[in-house]
Amino acid sequence: MSARAGIVVTGTEVLAGRVPDRNGPWLADRLSELGIELAHIAICGDRPADVAAQLRFLASEGVDLVVTSGGLGPTADDLTAEVVGRFQGRDSFLDEELERRIAAIVEPLLKRWRGLDQAAIEASTRKQATIPVGADVLGPAGTAPGLVVPPVDGHRRPTLVVLPGPPRELQSLWPEAVATEAFRAAVAGRSRYEHRTLRLIGIPESEIAETLRVGEAHIDRLGELEVTTCLRRGELEVGVRYEPPAQAAWEGLLDLVRERHGPQLFSDDGATVDEQVAALLRESQATVAVAESCTGGELAGRLSGPAGASAYFAGGVVAYADEAKASLLAVDPALIARHGAVSPQVASAMAAGAVGRLGADAAVAVTGIAGPGGGTEEKPVGYVCFAARLADGREVARDLVIPGERAEVRDRSTTLAMHVLRALLLGEPAPT
Amino acid sequence: MSARAGIVVTGTEVLAGRVPDRNGPWLADRLSELGIELAHIAICGDRPADVAAQLRFLASEGVDLVVTSGGLGPTADDLTAEVVGRFQGRDSFLDEELERRIAAIVEPLLKRWRGLDQAAIEASTRKQATIPVGADVLGPAGTAPGLVVPPVDGHRRPTLVVLPGPPRELQSLWPEAVATEAFRAAVAGRSRYEHRTLRLIGIPESEIAETLRVGEAHIDRLGELEVTTCLRRGELEVGVRYEPPAQAAWEGLLDLVRERHGPQLFSDDGATVDEQVAALLRESQATVAVAESCTGGELAGRLSGPAGASAYFAGGVVAYADEAKASLLAVDPALIARHGAVSPQVASAMAAGAVGRLGADAAVAVTGIAGPGGGTEEKPVGYVCFAARLADGREVARDLVIPGERAEVRDRSTTLAMHVLRALLLGEPAPT
Repeated sequence: MSARAGIVVTGTEVLAGRVPDRNGPWLADRLSELGIELAHIAICGDRPADVAAQLRFLASEGVDLVVTSGGLGPTADDLTAEVVGRFQGRDSFLDEELERRIAAIVEPLLKRWRGLDQAAIEASTRKQATIPVGADVLGPAGTAPGLVVPPVDGHRRPTLVVLPGPPRELQSLWPEAVATEAFRAAVAGRSRYEHRTLRLIGIPESEIAETLRVGEAHIDRLGELEVTTCLRRGELEVGVRYEPPAQAAWEGLLDLVRERHGPQLFSDDGATVDEQVAALLRESQATVAVAESCTGGELAGRLSGPAGASAYFAGGVVAYADEAKASLLAVDPALIARHGAVSPQVASAMAAGAVGRLGADAAVAVTGIAGPGGGTEEKPVGYVCFAARLADGREVARDLVIPGERAEVRDRSTTLAMHVLRALLLGEPAPT
Repeated sequence: MSARAGIVVTGTEVLAGRVPDRNGPWLADRLSELGIELAHIAICGDRPADVAAQLRFLASEGVDLVVTSGGLGPTADDLTAEVVGRFQGRDSFLDEELERRIAAIVEPLLKRWRGLDQAAIEASTRKQATIPVGADVLGPAGTAPGLVVPPVDGHRRPTLVVLPGPPRELQSLWPEAVATEAFRAAVAGRSRYEHRTLRLIGIPESEIAETLRVGEAHIDRLGELEVTTCLRRGELEVGVRYEPPAQAAWEGLLDLVRERHGPQLFSDDGATVDEQVAALLRESQATVAVAESCTGGELAGRLSGPAGASAYFAGGVVAYADEAKASLLAVDPALIARHGAVSPQVASAMAAGAVGRLGADAAVAVTGIAGPGGGTEEKPVGYVCFAARLADGREVARDLVIPGERAEVRDRSTTLAMHVLRALLLGEPAPT
């Protein structure tokens, strides 16, 4: 049986839905990698009573580990360290060495302000350096240290990992937390799991379910693989978790998926299509341009998002109006009049225009009807045409009707455009 | 005292962080509008024991209302209705009228498939029509009905609102849930609150704290306003909640904020800058174009996002490379050589080029260094220049250094560009 954990995210803004919680999902991924089973994620406000209630609840559920985020700052409503210490029955003390380290971090940050109250600053530093007896100190990453607080000897309680709320600080302290003796003791003697991720496009979840049924007949120990499937942005993500003795079953399943869904399987090492496209462009030292209408800039935004994108991203044109398609992408107005702005012919001309006008080695074009208005019987809302083209004229194209509302059509169109571009760069046919 | 509520989001994919939870934040907003205080959001898997544990926990915390999402589908692991009924001590029964309604919904959906197992379909429908005695039925919106399940008379337990997991279905059933007698009884006798939202730009949270301190001296009952502040994308959102008798205190605070932070206060009715810009463009029947570099398409994506954007969004150019700035936006290469691609002069030329090339009434341009590379001592990572320009040459411009990493610089740059455009359309000076 694997170790079980709970996550407690504190923060009034997160609870109120004003800020999305980035820490819960990130920690869920990390716990999963360690083979620790996540039982609950709880989000509560900054009130000590609510945080303490969550800790009691998770302890009563028998989890081995609780990870908290938030409430470690210098202000009066940052009370997590105190709540956690009391929960474990540990007194708090002022760690003077930690106090000096925090003071050294704070000092240069405060230099650019004038007229600050020195006594208030010292009180804040002292507060952040006051920690439960017997806790491991992590960092600090910002000014707040993280903590690993084990139960007092003889008490059956979870070990608490106390991390700051800002995602960057939380993420940078995590490896230190995992390396502590207390963390390892809490999850000791539990199973280790292998994790694999397959990504497919153009396939419903039920097909994978059918493949698993087929596999049962001839793959030994297939039942020992824990398989989850998840549809996202039109892609199907298949997660597989198993204990090392089931390695051969995983390999058998991978062979079967390749055999039955080869053209749909685009990633068997966890890489996303964005990462694959970036790697292909870097390897071939090619530049790429974008010509888009219905995605309105989101495709260019996605291609230019990764650090270092300027090495391969030449630029893009968002040609919403027909005149823009003509003036900026040299699309023949007669072509638009004949086939309509949303047509495979115009998508192809847009891609050719982007290659020419932006002097790129390749271009990808999207034109479609995102809705809610603008649909016709022949070309309904969601009808989208894609073309990806190399400077020498080689092209991969695709058109289809994408279900869903405006934001979904735009989002799934950017994903499909990435796949059409990937196919072009690999010399493969368009995704089905 | 206001009614208190908890939210339980069920779903293994959400717990594992593979799908972001959209229901918790949405429900948090709705509860807040109703003046119901949210104590906890919990995310757990599909295991009945985990869902039941969350219900027990929230009941022990004394909440009046629990809203659940997910676990209402036709498959074997959709067990919320059963868990909820047992928790409230209510037997379940097959609601035959509901069974007929679900069957009528399912039938046309199944017509396009062949070889389906009729007995399995009927079993699924029966499962979804089996509900706790005394529950109100909501919908169904998809094929799954929602439920409002009050406690059995004489039991001090929360009323449970049971909603399906798909966000669109959940959202469409919510008004029906709120209108039920059981819902109203659960939150009856509790306070009603007014909610106001102020939005400011270019101001730290501490300034609002100082304004509240100043207000205490002369605004009667100011302490009865519940004020929360939240920094997001470089904007400061100030939420104010109060019971109706404190109306005059709210008005006094609003006057004080206008007096002290007039130039920074851009919205006092909850409208976002995106909504304001869209409304200004629609009212003036003007079109707008975008010329962007470091934001890489995200600004165009944001302007073109709302339904109906094609009425005012002419298009955009993502000019990452210098050659693209020259060829697509007619920026003089000598200007780039003299001042650098990231300069107020080039931002202004990009805006002028976008107006001309896209035949728009206005344009907004951004050029900057998003990082992580590309910074210099004079122009560090985060240095960004903005210009918004009308066809007649009137212009609003701004340049500054935005702190943070690549994604944050890009994100905050799109927000600031919206504000520079807003200022242009209103004939106001650039935001500070």
